[in-house]
Amino acid sequence: MDKVNLVEKFTLFDDRWSPKIVGELNGQYVKLAKLKGEFVWHHHQAEDELFFVIRGRLTMRLPEKEIVIEEGEFVIVPRGVEHCPVAAEEVLVLLFEPKSTAHTGDVHTEMTVETLDWI
Amino acid sequence: MDKVNLVEKFTLFDDRWSPKIVGELNGQYVKLAKLKGEFVWHHHQAEDELFFVIRGRLTMRLPEKEIVIEEGEFVIVPRGVEHCPVAAEEVLVLLFEPKSTAHTGDVHTEMTVETLDWI
Repeated sequence: MDKVNLVEKFTLFDDRWSPKIVGELNGQYVKLAKLKGEFVWHHHQAEDELFFVIRGRLTMRLPEKEIVIEEGEFVIVPRGVEHCPVAAEEVLVLLFEPKSTAHTGDVHTEMTVETLDWI
Repeated sequence: MDKVNLVEKFTLFDDRWSPKIVGELNGQYVKLAKLKGEFVWHHHQAEDELFFVIRGRLTMRLPEKEIVIEEGEFVIVPRGVEHCPVAAEEVLVLLFEPKSTAHTGDVHTEMTVETLDWI
């Protein structure tokens, strides 16, 4: 059992929209990702998804509104809800979600990463 | 769906060793707690438990070693592992764990809180 330092882990990768696994518990993964630009609209059929902003600002577009998530804030997107993460500048996020979660949900695009790395 | 600001949430309570629920997803709770002093040795039979230090320093005593967790770091204590959180000064932590988790695990003491509040 070792601790995980987020700043250290974020130095280990530069690719965006490609979540890395940094922890596993109770059938869930803790992931880190660097995001910039606009992702794809998608939803997850059976998984709620938590986005916690570690550095920067993330905009979560939703069907009826958008939520701007600042450093030290999180949002939980419930299963079934369409969403599209957008970041004008690079944002560092921690994700918490079931191991089964595909990051582009029901949508398969060129941004889809099939296999996530542990770092 | 609303975002959660950790700093704001931490201003809403002062009691220590009494986790507050700030989110729910996939059968898990996100909780915040203020800790100072020494807790009780305990384990959780069926739940892995994540401790993420938001501010301060947390020492996790384990049977074979202790881990000092600083701001921006987390540790996952696997199910079944005896542990005792200790904090010389107040530490603010975020917890991820199944809804079923009792914070003193298999031990029942005067520190045990039976019902957790949502804040």
